[in-house]
Parts: sequence; C-alpha cells; structure tokens
Amino acid sequence: MREFNLIANHLAPLAAKFEGSLGLRDDAALIRVPEGHELVVTKDAISQGVHFIGDEDAILIAKKLMRTNLSDLAAKGAKPLCYMLGLMLPDGTTDEWVEEFAKGLLEEQQMFGLHLIGGDTIKIEGPFCASITAFGLIKSGRAMLRKGAKPGDRVYVTGTLGDSAIGLALLQNQLRLPLANAHTVWLKDRYLLPQPRMALGQALVGIAHACMDISDGLVQDLGHLCDVSGVRAVLHRKLLPLSVAAATVISSTPGYWHSVLSGGDDYELLFTAPSSAQEDLAALSKNLRIPITAIGEIIVGEGVVVQDEHGRDVTPDEGGYSHL
Amino acid sequence: MREFNLIANHLAPLAAKFEGSLGLRDDAALIRVPEGHELVVTKDAISQGVHFIGDEDAILIAKKLMRTNLSDLAAKGAKPLCYMLGLMLPDGTTDEWVEEFAKGLLEEQQMFGLHLIGGDTIKIEGPFCASITAFGLIKSGRAMLRKGAKPGDRVYVTGTLGDSAIGLALLQNQLRLPLANAHTVWLKDRYLLPQPRMALGQALVGIAHACMDISDGLVQDLGHLCDVSGVRAVLHRKLLPLSVAAATVISSTPGYWHSVLSGGDDYELLFTAPSSAQEDLAALSKNLRIPITAIGEIIVGEGVVVQDEHGRDVTPDEGGYSHL
Repeated sequence: MREFNLIANHLAPLAAKFEGSLGLRDDAALIRVPEGHELVVTKDAISQGVHFIGDEDAILIAKKLMRTNLSDLAAKGAKPLCYMLGLMLPDGTTDEWVEEFAKGLLEEQQMFGLHLIGGDTIKIEGPFCASITAFGLIKSGRAMLRKGAKPGDRVYVTGTLGDSAIGLALLQNQLRLPLANAHTVWLKDRYLLPQPRMALGQALVGIAHACMDISDGLVQDLGHLCDVSGVRAVLHRKLLPLSVAAATVISSTPGYWHSVLSGGDDYELLFTAPSSAQEDLAALSKNLRIPITAIGEIIVGEGVVVQDEHGRDVTPDEGGYSHL
Repeated sequence: MREFNLIANHLAPLAAKFEGSLGLRDDAALIRVPEGHELVVTKDAISQGVHFIGDEDAILIAKKLMRTNLSDLAAKGAKPLCYMLGLMLPDGTTDEWVEEFAKGLLEEQQMFGLHLIGGDTIKIEGPFCASITAFGLIKSGRAMLRKGAKPGDRVYVTGTLGDSAIGLALLQNQLRLPLANAHTVWLKDRYLLPQPRMALGQALVGIAHACMDISDGLVQDLGHLCDVSGVRAVLHRKLLPLSVAAATVISSTPGYWHSVLSGGDDYELLFTAPSSAQEDLAALSKNLRIPITAIGEIIVGEGVVVQDEHGRDVTPDEGGYSHL
C-alpha cells in the first residue's frame, strides 16, 4: 500500500467537498477566512498503548482522535471548518484497517460539519500514531479563552465527571465490580467516545468569562484556568456531577473519587460565568439537553481548593492526568 | 519531565511573539488573516529510522522537519506565518534533547520569520516522531498550484538534483567512493539540511503557471503535476542540473542517475512557465543566487518522458521515493 494509493482511495473522498483541499493532490491546502472572523486552531495526537488500548475498532480510534480536537474547538466557541490529518502507520497496516479508519472520520465529518483538507501519511517503526490539526471559525475577538475568569464568577461544568477514567479502569480490568451492564457500557463508552459540546460551546460565547475543556482532570485543568486568569477557585465536592454509574462505583470503591477530581479524558466544558448568567445557562441546558452544573466560585487569590460538606479541604495532593 | 513543564520551559519561548499563540496556555490558538489574503496550510511528519537516521543532533532533526514544511509553503508562493508542533516522545527522552530540539526550531523561526502557536506533546511506546502543521499567507487566489501547466510551457527546477539521495547513501555507508571531503560534506548536508526556496517561491507568483516542491523524486512528482494539469512533460537528461559532487559520483557509479530522476528529499522547486518568462527568471536567479534550469517542455498528452541526447526514452520504470 503506497502513500499515493492510500490517499486516492481512502482520504481523497473525505476532502471532495472542500475546494481549498485541492483534492489532496497538491503540496498544501488553502483556507479562506470570511471577513470579520478568525481561525481557531488546535492539534491533538494519539499513540497506541498510551491514548487508546490498541484493540479498539479503527472506526472508534478515528472518532476519538477527531473528538478530542473538536472538544478544544467547542471550548473556544468555534464552529468546525476543516482539518489536517497525520497518519503514522506501522508495517503491516492493512488497507482494510485504513478504510475503517477513514469511515470513522467520514461519520464525524457528517456529524460535525467539517472536511479533510490535507496532511501527511508516513511509515513508523513502532506503534500506530495519528494527529489532527483542526480548524474552526469564530467572529474576531470573540473566542472564549482560559483567561478571563473574575472573582464573583461561578464555576460550571457540563455533563458528568470521572466516567472516562473509571471506564478505562474497567476496560483494563483494573476494576472488577458487579455492575449493571448498562453502567459498564456507559462508563466504557465515555472513555471510548467522548461527546464534544459543540453547540453549547458556540452558545456560551458572550456568556462565559473563561472556558476550557477538561482533558487532564478537573482540578489540574481548572488550576491552569485560574493561573492564567489570576484568580482562585473554590469547588464543593458535593456539587460535582456524577453519573449514576460513577456514583455506584464510588459508593463501593471510594478511591474512585480520584477519577472525578483528577481523571483524564472527561472532555466536558469547564467555564466561569457571572451569577447573572444563571437563567441563560438554565435555558441552554434545557434546550440542548446537556447538564450544566454550578460546582464552585471564583474568588481573589490563586490555585484550586476542593471542600467537603463541612468546608474541609479535600483537594487531591497530586496533579492530574498527564498524556506525556 | 511532564508535559506542562516541557511546554513552559522549552516551547513557550518559541511562541512569545505571536499573540494568537496565547502563550501556549490555552486549548487552541487564534490566527487572524489580513483582508485580501488566504492561508496556505501544510503538514509534514517525520519518524525516526524512516525520515532521519536517528543519530543526528536534535537541532538538525528539528530543522529538517521545519524545512520540509517550509518547502511546501515556498512551492505555493506563501510567506511563512506560524506553525503547530506535534511531538511524540519515547520514554527516556531527556530534557537536554528537547532543549536542543527547541533550539533548532528557534533558529529556523529567526531565519524564516515564523512562530510557534500551539500543538501537542505525547508519549509514544516506540521511536521519536514529530509533525508540524505550517501556515503561510498569500494574497487570495494567487497561490501557485500543481494545476495550471500548459502546453508550450518550459519546465524548470531550482538548484541541483539527486544530491540528497546520494548523501543518504553516503550516510548509510551504502556508497563508498574516494570522494573529496568537500563533496562528501555537500552531499550529506543536502540530505540533512534542505534549503527551502522561500524568497524564490514568493517571487514566482504571477510568473509560474504551476509549481510544487520535489520531495519524492523528479519524475514521480512531475508526473503528479502533469496529471492534475492534464498535460505531458518531456525532460532532457542532459539538461538536468547536477552538483559537481553528484556528477563526480555518477561518473564513477552511473547507477546513481537513479537518484537524480527518482531520489527523495531534493526539496527544490519544480515549476512550469511560458517561454516569455525567460528573462524574468534569469533576473530572479541572479538576484537570489539560486540556479534555475530549464529541463524540458510541457506538451499535449499525459505522463512524463525523459530523453537522452539522441531522443531515446530513458524514463525510469519504477516510480519515485515513497515515505510510506
């Protein structure tokens, strides 16, 4: 399988509807940015054995790679436009595997409205790796940043926390519990197939003061947001949103609280907004059917503290998850 | 060495002068495109043992990675703006190694006038890999494409051909000849450190009908250009520009003609222009001190043929170099 055939057979169809892709038959791609807009750009990579287990379907690996990138665009409020793909293929990668991988990308393109515009496919004397550089559009100067949180803001998260880290423990057989099948499936799926909050991210522009996605654990990621904003966050453990499945695991194995505070791969939005935004957020949550939970406050100071129901500091000692 | 420290210590300084990098402290970067311009985007990746030998200095590896990308921008006529960096680091990668790699990138930034704006750093259970997504600016609609070559055009290349492939053979001890030291150094350097033709690429806008860079071998790459342009190219072997070093190797080992026609990693510009452009090209060549050589003609038809001085077909059977 040579690079040229692989591109023509499996990747060019993903680029057919974006003129600036030049059909993947040129050295580079062209992106036109509409007047009054700017580009939001992110790049996330994955490698076998680190970011995924290795025996997942190629379709799922492609989808997760795409979604980790889309989650970053969502966190800035951007609308997906297009992406570049880097594939690093070990010897013996079959045409069928690449076909499945491309099928996963196509499904994501159709769901999220973006197009392949270029990239590079190389050989690797090691495990499969891939990276995506994803592009989104936003009105100039309107991107939500990590910077911008203000004392008096409330801290919000979407969805539920910790599912993905618990799901990974289940997938790796590190956690053995008599769980209902529906709970097991939910937790594993949360690891395998994150749900980037695209519509909500775009709707938060003008409402949120600061926003990011949680990929390396709530406490560590919020710490970065506080750091660049020059503020302190106080979180209330009892307010942290748990899925029924995660709550079930934690009630029997309390050590998994760690997953809620510091587990990786949540891919939920973490943002701050003034208390006056409460009604807007409730309406958004209802319309988009995405839970939005107030979990704490921004105050003057630095760092992140997590308090239990008695106001005691229960902040985990160590940081969060590191993909390096 | 955790991701956060690596970014703060070694990569953030590379992003300090580009506002949209957000100091590498956000989920994404922002790119503003000046009115009347569009973005040219390319992505090239390298992996140890495939694209470089492995014992090169980290500085050199960084420079070559950057330059393979810059060469694509040059071929479209774009002015470098910024880039995203993906690093896939094996266990045991030292802080010193990353520091050297970053130093190589900094030198390229200063030489070519672009800035780091973001990326991703991950762990890999295999050899070192890296990818760059590079961005350049060009006036809207002015990018040189592979498409556009017309019957009657002349075919031109910059610099000399085949050096890099011969240099690789020397580096791998596949070629042992009593060569002058200066020749050995020249050939190896051509493999290790390509010279992207940035200024010339930008100057060719409005002159060339079609343009690309040669990375997979003259005949194969020109074949792609002819294919998308719907034309045929006739090349004259005696016109192909060789360095003194390459000519010396080929005179004693004629098999290395293969490197000139089909060797990888030339990173020279290959373009077509009407015969009326001859004077402009001669002036450009003189001003920029870059050889520009007419090597053939575009005619009606398809494919590429190489002819010897008697008009006999000496086109190599096989294609070019494949990085996959």
